Amino acid sequence: MAVIRIAVDAMGGDHAPHEVVKGALQAAAAERDCEIILVGQEEVVRKEIDAISPKTPRNVSIVDAREVVTMEDKPIAPLRTKRNSSIRICADMVKEGKADAMVSAGQTGATWTSARMRLGMIEGIERPALAQVMPRHLGTTLLLDVGANVHAKPEHLREFAVMGHSFSQVILGVKEPRVGLLSIGEEEGKGNDLTKETFRVLKESGLNFIGNAEGRDIFNGHADVIVCDGFVGNVVLKASESLSEMVWTSLRYELSRNVVRKTVGGLVKPFLSNLKKRMDWREYGGAPLLGVKGGCIVCHGRSNAKAIKNAIRVAHEFVENRIDSRIQEKVNEMHALEVDRVASSESSELE
Amino acid sequence: MAVIRIAVDAMGGDHAPHEVVKGALQAAAAERDCEIILVGQEEVVRKEIDAISPKTPRNVSIVDAREVVTMEDKPIAPLRTKRNSSIRICADMVKEGKADAMVSAGQTGATWTSARMRLGMIEGIERPALAQVMPRHLGTTLLLDVGANVHAKPEHLREFAVMGHSFSQVILGVKEPRVGLLSIGEEEGKGNDLTKETFRVLKESGLNFIGNAEGRDIFNGHADVIVCDGFVGNVVLKASESLSEMVWTSLRYELSRNVVRKTVGGLVKPFLSNLKKRMDWREYGGAPLLGVKGGCIVCHGRSNAKAIKNAIRVAHEFVENRIDSRIQEKVNEMHALEVDRVASSESSELE
Repeated sequence: MAVIRIAVDAMGGDHAPHEVVKGALQAAAAERDCEIILVGQEEVVRKEIDAISPKTPRNVSIVDAREVVTMEDKPIAPLRTKRNSSIRICADMVKEGKADAMVSAGQTGATWTSARMRLGMIEGIERPALAQVMPRHLGTTLLLDVGANVHAKPEHLREFAVMGHSFSQVILGVKEPRVGLLSIGEEEGKGNDLTKETFRVLKESGLNFIGNAEGRDIFNGHADVIVCDGFVGNVVLKASESLSEMVWTSLRYELSRNVVRKTVGGLVKPFLSNLKKRMDWREYGGAPLLGVKGGCIVCHGRSNAKAIKNAIRVAHEFVENRIDSRIQEKVNEMHALEVDRVASSESSELE
Repeated sequence: MAVIRIAVDAMGGDHAPHEVVKGALQAAAAERDCEIILVGQEEVVRKEIDAISPKTPRNVSIVDAREVVTMEDKPIAPLRTKRNSSIRICADMVKEGKADAMVSAGQTGATWTSARMRLGMIEGIERPALAQVMPRHLGTTLLLDVGANVHAKPEHLREFAVMGHSFSQVILGVKEPRVGLLSIGEEEGKGNDLTKETFRVLKESGLNFIGNAEGRDIFNGHADVIVCDGFVGNVVLKASESLSEMVWTSLRYELSRNVVRKTVGGLVKPFLSNLKKRMDWREYGGAPLLGVKGGCIVCHGRSNAKAIKNAIRVAHEFVENRIDSRIQEKVNEMHALEVDRVASSESSELE
């Protein structure tokens, strides 16, 4: 297996550059077949590395990028006014074959725009989508789009379903992923204009479409892949993360209110570490942006070192399994099916 | 305090009539100043009562309703084809002053439609909204609309904000509720067409509007009232309920995998009962439909006796605190403010 090169935006995120560099160094130690390129203001990044490690690990390097995209910048900034920003240079490196994938905890809009415009799109896909792995009691559900497309058309949701199907098969190991459409009410007629029209499109898609999925189906195992527009997906994702954080805060509180509770809490703690890990978004590291060529992992703005380390792991898996190629194959296969379907319906009309 | 009369749809819900009647009898025992009228097929309801209680409690009565609205019926059914349905008769009783409020776990659309058309709307409110109390680590957040309006306009979201404000003050005891608009991204420009336009409307509303709220703000205490359209609200509500059920399932699992864990689990259980209660939607009983005259509490289709009992408690509080009048007062106050604002801006133009 060749070395996998990952460009990491060292300047992106609420806790950059410190936590990003720290997470990148942890990933470099854990994934020895990974080459990590930290992209950012060289002297700043160098200082962070030196503060953590006496010697720069051999699989870590720095590429200088003078500008930084902030939350106030427009998503288009890396393409127009900030061409020397770390996000833009990460994207350029993937485009030019100097890196296999990029990871950024910077502004989602700017990352998304840079990846889409610089990396280019998989043929047959118009819109990339952010895909998030959501925990279930047993297994996981893939939810997409969780924030790349505020508005989406039925055709885009069909694209998300195709891409989610591939990701679920290849990375999550689901043999025949059940695809649901996020809506309200199970019946076909339920939902808003977008979901009603998308229902018809997905029914004819040739995918294993199980119909409308309600909010509860994200966590109960009725579907493996659930598609929605990026507005709804983002609201649900953030609400879920916050709810699970709230539960743990309350659990800690209930188990520390007096000496007896503290003692019992201490006993129970190790038994809950598995569950805590499964509920912690930092463990999932980042959401892959499906649909672009190469790989692009979008991290939470609040990412700490652990989240960055895990995002680099996700990028590694993404490249290793050639997800973009697998999506391209699936798109081609679906296209061939569609051509057959149209041809056969036309020939039956002629008969 | 006069007796409060609550019409309960005995035939509505996945577990009707058994669980509904059981919950109603529990409520009748708990709330002695409450008169509960079970509306449904008399012989069926009678049989359920007899099976539970040797003697019908003095504050429980039956009103016969021959028809039952099913999930397959159109929401308009109680107004057209099923005028003798239990939902319709509950609404008629409130309209005619024979009951103060209604409670139903039947089809949400049919309940909503019956309440809106038969009870009538508070003057100045065009659309009723389902309001759900969401748990936080400390306190609660009111989320609305959680499913009455699949589509909503900015003006409707303003109405939801006004109604949520009153409910939060009167029932939840929040002195000056902070109102947020559910969107993605905190900044004014972030979101979809609906939220961008609503942001402008809410900024001028005279309410304590704190701007966009993200999904996470439902659970972190940044806002007291959060408004959204019924599609997004319903998806988030069902996802949250399901996620919290999933956490408890996983907790139980982790604390029962072997003898040691079972033992520790047994010790910790009593300390978690408070939290479990706060996370259980059945404890909140049902979502009040704000904006209609009188009271209408919409329950989960999956409601068990506990949920029905709590929904009756919510209805009781609703009537006791005259929420509909309080909303009417707030609407009038906001209207007066608006008249002043327009008058003063016109007079300044004349100067």
